[in-house]
Amino acid sequence: MKTVPPMDAPAQEGMPFEDIDTPALIVDLDAFERNLSRMAEAIKDQPVRLRAHAKTHKSPVITKKQMELGAIGACCQKVSEAEVLIRNGVANVLVSNEVIGLQKLARLAALTKDAEWIGLCIDSELGLKQASEAAANAGVTLNALVEIDVGAGRCGVAPGEAALQLATLISDDPHLNFTGLQAYHGSAQHIRDHGERKAAIDETIEMTRATVDLLRENGLECEIVGGAGTGTFEMEAASGVYNELQAGSYIFMDADYARNHSEGGGPFDMFEHALFVLTGVMSRPEANKAVVDAGHKAASIDSGMPEPFSMTGMRYERPSDEHGVLFIEGSNKPPELGEKVLLVPGHCDPTVNLHDWYVCVRGLHGENPVVEEIWPVSARGAYF
Amino acid sequence: MKTVPPMDAPAQEGMPFEDIDTPALIVDLDAFERNLSRMAEAIKDQPVRLRAHAKTHKSPVITKKQMELGAIGACCQKVSEAEVLIRNGVANVLVSNEVIGLQKLARLAALTKDAEWIGLCIDSELGLKQASEAAANAGVTLNALVEIDVGAGRCGVAPGEAALQLATLISDDPHLNFTGLQAYHGSAQHIRDHGERKAAIDETIEMTRATVDLLRENGLECEIVGGAGTGTFEMEAASGVYNELQAGSYIFMDADYARNHSEGGGPFDMFEHALFVLTGVMSRPEANKAVVDAGHKAASIDSGMPEPFSMTGMRYERPSDEHGVLFIEGSNKPPELGEKVLLVPGHCDPTVNLHDWYVCVRGLHGENPVVEEIWPVSARGAYF
Repeated sequence: MKTVPPMDAPAQEGMPFEDIDTPALIVDLDAFERNLSRMAEAIKDQPVRLRAHAKTHKSPVITKKQMELGAIGACCQKVSEAEVLIRNGVANVLVSNEVIGLQKLARLAALTKDAEWIGLCIDSELGLKQASEAAANAGVTLNALVEIDVGAGRCGVAPGEAALQLATLISDDPHLNFTGLQAYHGSAQHIRDHGERKAAIDETIEMTRATVDLLRENGLECEIVGGAGTGTFEMEAASGVYNELQAGSYIFMDADYARNHSEGGGPFDMFEHALFVLTGVMSRPEANKAVVDAGHKAASIDSGMPEPFSMTGMRYERPSDEHGVLFIEGSNKPPELGEKVLLVPGHCDPTVNLHDWYVCVRGLHGENPVVEEIWPVSARGAYF
Repeated sequence: MKTVPPMDAPAQEGMPFEDIDTPALIVDLDAFERNLSRMAEAIKDQPVRLRAHAKTHKSPVITKKQMELGAIGACCQKVSEAEVLIRNGVANVLVSNEVIGLQKLARLAALTKDAEWIGLCIDSELGLKQASEAAANAGVTLNALVEIDVGAGRCGVAPGEAALQLATLISDDPHLNFTGLQAYHGSAQHIRDHGERKAAIDETIEMTRATVDLLRENGLECEIVGGAGTGTFEMEAASGVYNELQAGSYIFMDADYARNHSEGGGPFDMFEHALFVLTGVMSRPEANKAVVDAGHKAASIDSGMPEPFSMTGMRYERPSDEHGVLFIEGSNKPPELGEKVLLVPGHCDPTVNLHDWYVCVRGLHGENPVVEEIWPVSARGAYF
């Protein structure tokens, strides 16, 4: 297989913060570690396990830190992400997504030999047939969850009878092991108002509960009932129905989740911003404008603009490929040419996917911040 | 330096098109080669050189194909892109952007030893001082263009006196060689109406012409007057003022440029779509919906959604990290589970930057399309 040389890292371990080149993806290690601990603390008395989502961070290093604090493994969206996780010592991985195509499924089946537990989601008879064929070809059994659409309107069969029908087919298949339900309401994570978010998840929980009950009445026990994200995990955790949480963003917290908070409470009461894009001022064409060196290729804008951290009267706008413009409002002091600015990403996951390296800083907001570690974004670009 | 293993390619050379795994970044080689030739043809009788922009493709392979048809070299936005180009045999590279910071400038200065010609843009006295210092430290001379703001409202000093002042300082510096003007109007490329676009560039040309004249009156000749993109290059080419064109997107043509065409004419009269994201249908939850496996991590949405190619009554919407939804209008036939669909990216440059490999297909729209070559996106992630 051909290889592409990776990019160099924009920093080295031991380096003072001020020497980091820009743009760079920064982890505030102190805030990150507090976020990890707070999640572990928040669910320790609940009847749920954490299967933290690796699509957020794409880093086996981070999955292992989550597992040290009690997570049972990882979930991810793609087979190639699972390959990276397993190759780097994460032994329990759920692909929380449909996998269609014998090429991908053969790769997934092959992974079972190096892992303790591998699972995938199914929402069609074709998906079932292909997964069964791939498992048979590899001489293994694949764990399969039925995905139900609990409000997100994306993948999944309808809760209730349709789920029972598919679960029965899986259960009857000699190469598949029916393991439970995937019941994630993605779009509910970003409903701004806490009451509306709660109402949406209440419906999700009831659909899931009814389906679990229907399956049980038909002799099918759900070993896993999985779902939940950072915006709603406390609700699913307290439901008595879900037993696995798939939250991911809590480790970093992005500007979009912060907007949930400001408009009605949410996970931001518990977690802090721990991920930043460090950018440098490269042009100061006008008194109220600073052009920085981070654009579309350093920070995603699919969930809104990145926001300058802890700098009032300044907003990031008009990104192009390699530029962004900081507009300075009123008489606020603009950053000088060459000065470095921390941006809170609008959306963590696709922003992380633009970078090859995490530059992990100790004491980021203190007097002498230093680069403590550099972690590879090992599964960056793992999309198939 | 630590390294990250790159992702495998989703295809192999010689493979039939139908075996390509998804998502994949596809080049229609036939259309791509026609686009290259049409640009060469379009400017062959004009007093301008093509310095094609490598930020679009991030591929030395493609720069070399452009140079075989007459391009004099490449421009790029970042020092790290220049490093990749020069390391792979492209000897003439302009960083068409400001470079601030002694780390970056030391790397740029070091490149002069392996290249025939290296240049950068300057729009501040600090930028000048730093470039001079880096050149002096490396014992080399750096070619420097003054960037002027010709309407884009991003980087650059004002045309006229401010440009003269900075050009004079560069010209007087023992470690810098004043080479000319960078005068690119980025936002004009995407003005939908041809007449409005022309009016904007007419102003740009006049500002540039006046600045070139002012410099000449003061003894400063512009060896390079550079700018222009795919949306306006014919205007700058015919101006008699510009002598270097920096168009990039013409090789691929994205959905955003296609929207220029539909709203009043433009480069789409000359160039064809040659870049696609191939995506597979992974869920068919409803009759009018097909969920595909390409989301934010396979196609950028900063300039609008990707568009299903040559499929009427279908639109791509609601992307999430690894999913997109094709909505089928009316009685149009939806693609089946497992079927593969070509998407035209909304914006080429940040889409290419999400991928590690170009899968280059011969006869894409014919009966037996085949993977002819696989090219690395060598400068993907090269943002500093």
